[in-house]
Amino acid sequence: MHVALAQINPVVGDLLGNADRILQAVDKVIDTEATPPALMVTPELSLWGYPPRDLLFSSAHLQQQTEALEALCKGLASRGSAMALLVGFADAADDSLHPSLFNALALVEAGGWRVAARKQLLPSYDVFDETRYFRPSQGGAHVTLRQGGRDWRIGLTICEDLWVEDELHDRRLVGPDPVGGLIDQQIDLLINCSASPFGRRKGALRQRLAFRAAQRLRCPVVYVNQVGGNDELVFDGASFVMGSNSETPLLQLPSCVTTTATWNAEGAAQPAQSLNAGRATDHEGLNEASDELELLFRSLVTGVRDYAGKCGFGKALLGLSGGIDSALVAVIAAAALGTEQVQTLLMPSPWSSSGSITDALTLSERLGLAHFIVPIETLMEGFEKTLTPTLQAAPSGVTAENLQSRIRGTLLMAVANQQGQLLLTTGNKSELAVGYCTLYGDMNGGLAVIGDLYKSTVFALCRWLESDAAGLCRSELGLPAKGALIGTAILEKPPSAELRPDQKDSDSLPDYDRLDPLLIDLIEHRLSGDQLVAAGHDPRDVERIERLFRRAEFKRRQAAPLLKMSSQAFGSGWRLPIAAHA
Amino acid sequence: MHVALAQINPVVGDLLGNADRILQAVDKVIDTEATPPALMVTPELSLWGYPPRDLLFSSAHLQQQTEALEALCKGLASRGSAMALLVGFADAADDSLHPSLFNALALVEAGGWRVAARKQLLPSYDVFDETRYFRPSQGGAHVTLRQGGRDWRIGLTICEDLWVEDELHDRRLVGPDPVGGLIDQQIDLLINCSASPFGRRKGALRQRLAFRAAQRLRCPVVYVNQVGGNDELVFDGASFVMGSNSETPLLQLPSCVTTTATWNAEGAAQPAQSLNAGRATDHEGLNEASDELELLFRSLVTGVRDYAGKCGFGKALLGLSGGIDSALVAVIAAAALGTEQVQTLLMPSPWSSSGSITDALTLSERLGLAHFIVPIETLMEGFEKTLTPTLQAAPSGVTAENLQSRIRGTLLMAVANQQGQLLLTTGNKSELAVGYCTLYGDMNGGLAVIGDLYKSTVFALCRWLESDAAGLCRSELGLPAKGALIGTAILEKPPSAELRPDQKDSDSLPDYDRLDPLLIDLIEHRLSGDQLVAAGHDPRDVERIERLFRRAEFKRRQAAPLLKMSSQAFGSGWRLPIAAHA
Repeated sequence: MHVALAQINPVVGDLLGNADRILQAVDKVIDTEATPPALMVTPELSLWGYPPRDLLFSSAHLQQQTEALEALCKGLASRGSAMALLVGFADAADDSLHPSLFNALALVEAGGWRVAARKQLLPSYDVFDETRYFRPSQGGAHVTLRQGGRDWRIGLTICEDLWVEDELHDRRLVGPDPVGGLIDQQIDLLINCSASPFGRRKGALRQRLAFRAAQRLRCPVVYVNQVGGNDELVFDGASFVMGSNSETPLLQLPSCVTTTATWNAEGAAQPAQSLNAGRATDHEGLNEASDELELLFRSLVTGVRDYAGKCGFGKALLGLSGGIDSALVAVIAAAALGTEQVQTLLMPSPWSSSGSITDALTLSERLGLAHFIVPIETLMEGFEKTLTPTLQAAPSGVTAENLQSRIRGTLLMAVANQQGQLLLTTGNKSELAVGYCTLYGDMNGGLAVIGDLYKSTVFALCRWLESDAAGLCRSELGLPAKGALIGTAILEKPPSAELRPDQKDSDSLPDYDRLDPLLIDLIEHRLSGDQLVAAGHDPRDVERIERLFRRAEFKRRQAAPLLKMSSQAFGSGWRLPIAAHA
Repeated sequence: MHVALAQINPVVGDLLGNADRILQAVDKVIDTEATPPALMVTPELSLWGYPPRDLLFSSAHLQQQTEALEALCKGLASRGSAMALLVGFADAADDSLHPSLFNALALVEAGGWRVAARKQLLPSYDVFDETRYFRPSQGGAHVTLRQGGRDWRIGLTICEDLWVEDELHDRRLVGPDPVGGLIDQQIDLLINCSASPFGRRKGALRQRLAFRAAQRLRCPVVYVNQVGGNDELVFDGASFVMGSNSETPLLQLPSCVTTTATWNAEGAAQPAQSLNAGRATDHEGLNEASDELELLFRSLVTGVRDYAGKCGFGKALLGLSGGIDSALVAVIAAAALGTEQVQTLLMPSPWSSSGSITDALTLSERLGLAHFIVPIETLMEGFEKTLTPTLQAAPSGVTAENLQSRIRGTLLMAVANQQGQLLLTTGNKSELAVGYCTLYGDMNGGLAVIGDLYKSTVFALCRWLESDAAGLCRSELGLPAKGALIGTAILEKPPSAELRPDQKDSDSLPDYDRLDPLLIDLIEHRLSGDQLVAAGHDPRDVERIERLFRRAEFKRRQAAPLLKMSSQAFGSGWRLPIAAHA
C-alpha cells in the first residue's frame, strides 16, 4: 500500500480555498512519484481548517462544503488521477436534533465521494468544544482499497479516537475504544487524521499512542496532523508513520512546515517484517526540530506568521521597553514576517533607565528593525493636569503607573492604526497570571505572542537563541546566524516595569524562580492554597500570589488572543467566572 | 404534599456561603409556615451557583462541597427540622475517566444526604458547556417521600431534562426523554431544578414546557429557577408550579428577587381535580413584571447590581456623552447601586455639541448623580504633537477619532482606579456588531451593561422608562417615579459619536431601523449574505454590513463581559475564529 501524507495549512472557513490546497498537495505528489499512491491522507476537518468553531453553524459554509467536495472530485478527474483522498468534513445528521453534525472523513475519488468514517471520541476539554457541534459516532470504520492486486483493509480514526491509553495521558474520555474496536477487523493499516495543537513533549506522546495502537492492531499507523497557526492554536504538523516493532517512526515529517510525503507498506499483511521506510518529498529547507526550545520557537514564529497572514496583515508593530519580553517578541516577529515588516516604538518616560533606551536601540539595529522614539513625559504631565481637579490630587500609585502604560498603549494603537500594522502584545504568562500588567495599556494588541510563556521560559528561550545550537534555526528563519541577538545587557538586567523610580519586579513579586513554579502548580495543576503549601511553596508567597491571581481574572477575560504553547493557557481553554468566590 | 420553592441567589463557587443561603431560606419557611413542608427545592447546582465553569476542576472546591452538604445536614438537625432539601451539587464518578462529574441533586435530611438524581440532557450550546464537566446520566430518577400518612412518588429532572418538546423550541438535544421515562413510574409530582438565564419570552416557554410535562405525566410540575446575576448571565427566577389542567400556573414567584414560597398539593394522586393554589411568602415588595420591557429593565438592573456586588464594588463610574446609550446605562446603574454610588464623567471635545454637555448635565442632576467635566482638547493636542514626528503628519481619519475615544477611556480608567469604582461600558449591540466602537477607548470597562441591546431596543426601553407604565417600577427601584428621566432632548437627537464636526451615525451606517433587522438576521438567525438578500434586506446594506461585521470580530474578542439578554449575545456563547474566511 502506497500512501501520501498531506500535512497542509488550511485557512479556517475557506472551504473552496482549502480544497485547492488539497489539490496542490495532490499535484506535488503526482509530480514527484513515478507511481502515484492509492490514497492521500489529509488532517482532521481539512476542508474547514481546525477549529472552525461557530462557522459550523453557518448554512452558507455547509453549502460551500458540498461545492468543495465536488471540486475535489473534479480536480482528481481532470488530472486523470486514480488516487483516493481522505478529507475531513462535517457530516450533517438526517434529523433536526442538536448537535446536528458528525466530525467525519470523506473518501473522495474522481467519480464521487462518500462518508468513510465518523469520529467517536469528541474532546470537550481545554480549548476543545467538539460536543458543541458534533455527535459522537457509535461505531468504528474501515474502508477497503485495492492496490497492487490485493485488497487493503484500512482502519480509520480521527484525532481523539487514538487517545485511548489512559496510562499514557490523564484525559481518557468516557466512550468507546475506537482502536480496540478494530482489533477483530483484520486491518492492514490504521489511519489517524488529526488536528493536534503544539504542546511541550506532545509529539512524543502522539507517537507513543500510535505505537501502542500499532502493537494492538499489528499494523502500521499513518498519522497526519494539520500544520499552521489558527488564532491562538499552533498546529505543528510533525506527521509520521509508526510501525508495530519500534517506537522510532518509519517516516517522520518535519514540524511547522507545509509538506507532503509518501510511504509504502509492501505486503503489509505481516507489517512487522515488511515495512519500508518512506521519504519526505518536500521539506522546504527546514530540518526536523530536534530540541524542545527550538520547536517552541518555531511554533511561536508559525503562530505570528499565520495570525498576521490569515488576518491580512503584512506588517507588525511593537513597543520595545529594553526588557527581555519585548526583545523576544521582536525576534519572533522578525523571523515570522521579515525584518522590513516589523517596526518598534520606544516610549521612554522619566523613570526609564538610560540602559533601557540604548538596549532597545541596539536590539532594533541588530535585527534591522525600523524604530521610532516617542517620549511620553509631556503626555504624563497633560493627564496629570487634566485629572487633578477631578481627583483633587495628582494621580498617584497604581493609577499613575497605569496612566503611563495606557499612554504607551494609546500611542502604539495610533501608530498601528495609521500605518495598517498588527500591534503585537509583549506580556508574558507570569504577568498575566498575577495581573502585573495594565488593561488598555501594555495589554493592547491583536496577538499576545508570548502570553503563554512564563518569565522563566522567556529567559530560557532567549538564552537558547544566543547559543550556538540556535545558529541553524536562526539562519533558516532569516535572522543573523551568529553573534548576540538579544544581547547580554537585556538578558542580565533585573526585570522592571520602570513605572516609578528604581522599580523592580521583585519589589512586588517573589523572584521568578520562586514565582513560576508556584504558578505552574496553580494553573497547570490547578492546586489549591493548601495543596500549594503542601507541595513546598512558601505559605506567604502562596497567600499573596493566590490573591493576586484570582483578582486578575477580569484582566485575562479582556486579554488579546495568545499563542497557546502549554497544557493550560489563558484564553479559550481557560474558563473561570469573574464575580465568584474562587 | 407540601413543598417549598427556594428561589435563591447563590454566589458562584461560594459553597459554604451558598449552604448558608439555603439555610436562610429554610428559616424563612419555618418562620412563616405553621406546618413546615416536607421538602424544599433549590435550583440546579445550588451549592455552586450557576455556572461554576472551571471551578468544577478545583479539588479544593469539591472538598468544600462535602463540607457544605454536611453543614446542611447539621443545619437541619440543629433546627429540629424534618424537612428534606433538594440541593444541586456535582457528583464525582468513581473512575478516572473524563469528564469526571455528574450534574446532580442531593436529597439532604438532618440525618444525612444521598444522591437523588443525575442530569440526563447536558446543554453544550450557546453559553452552556456542560459536557466539558459532566457526563450524562443514562437513567431517570424519582424519590419517595412520606407525608400526610401516604407515600409521594416524586420525579426529578434538572433544567434541560424538561426541554424535550421539539415543537416548542428548536434545540432538542440528542438523548433520552427524561419526562417520557417517568410516564410508567406513576409519579405524583415532577420537580425541575433549573438555572435558566433570562431571555425574551423565555418565561412563557418554560411554562409551556412544564405544562406539556404535567399533561404527559398527569401530575403537577414544580419548577425552581436560580435568581441573580453571575457575570454575563442574569437568572430571572420566576419559579412556578404548573398543573396539568391549565397553562396558568398554580403558583407564580416574582422575577429578579430572592424569595421563597410554599405550595400544597392535597391528594395529588388525582392532581387534575385536587390542586390548591399556593402562595408566595416573600415578594420583597416587587410585583411580577408584566411587561417584556419591564422584565428586561429589571434583568439589566439585577445584572449590574450582582456583578458589582459579587466583585466587591459598591461604586460605579461611567462616561456620559449626552447620547442615549450612556443615559440608559446611568439610569440602570442608579437603580442597581443607588444614585449616591454612581458618578459620571463628561469629557467634551471641540466636536461635542453644546447640547450634548447640557443634556448630560441635566440627566446627572435629574438622577442625582455626581458629575465631573474633564475637557479633552489639551490631551488631543498633546497626542497630535507627540505623534506627528513619527507619523510625519498629524493623526487623521479613524486614527484621530480613535485617539479621542482612547483619551476618554484612559481618563475614565484613571478616575475609576483612583476612586475604586467599577467602570461601566456604555456601548450597544449594534455598535459592537459593526465595530462602530473603539477598542481600549469607549469599550473600556468591567461590564458592558447594554452590550446585548440593539440600538432600537435601547430606544424602546428608554421610551418605556419615560412612560406612565414604568412609574411603579421606577419608584420601586429608587428612581424618580414621575416626570422625564432620560428626557426628550436625548431621546430625540440623531445618534452621533461626535468624533468629528457634525458627524452622525447615519453618515457611516444605515439608519437603525434598517440596520438592526439586518443584524438580527445576521446574528440571531445566522443568515448568510445570500439569505439576507433573499430575506428582503438591501443588497448594498448586506454587503457593507457583513464586511464590517466580520472585520469587528477581533474587537468583540477583547470586549468587556456583557449582560446577555438575547438568544444570541456576543460573549461566551459567541465563538467565532478571527483569522478566518468567515
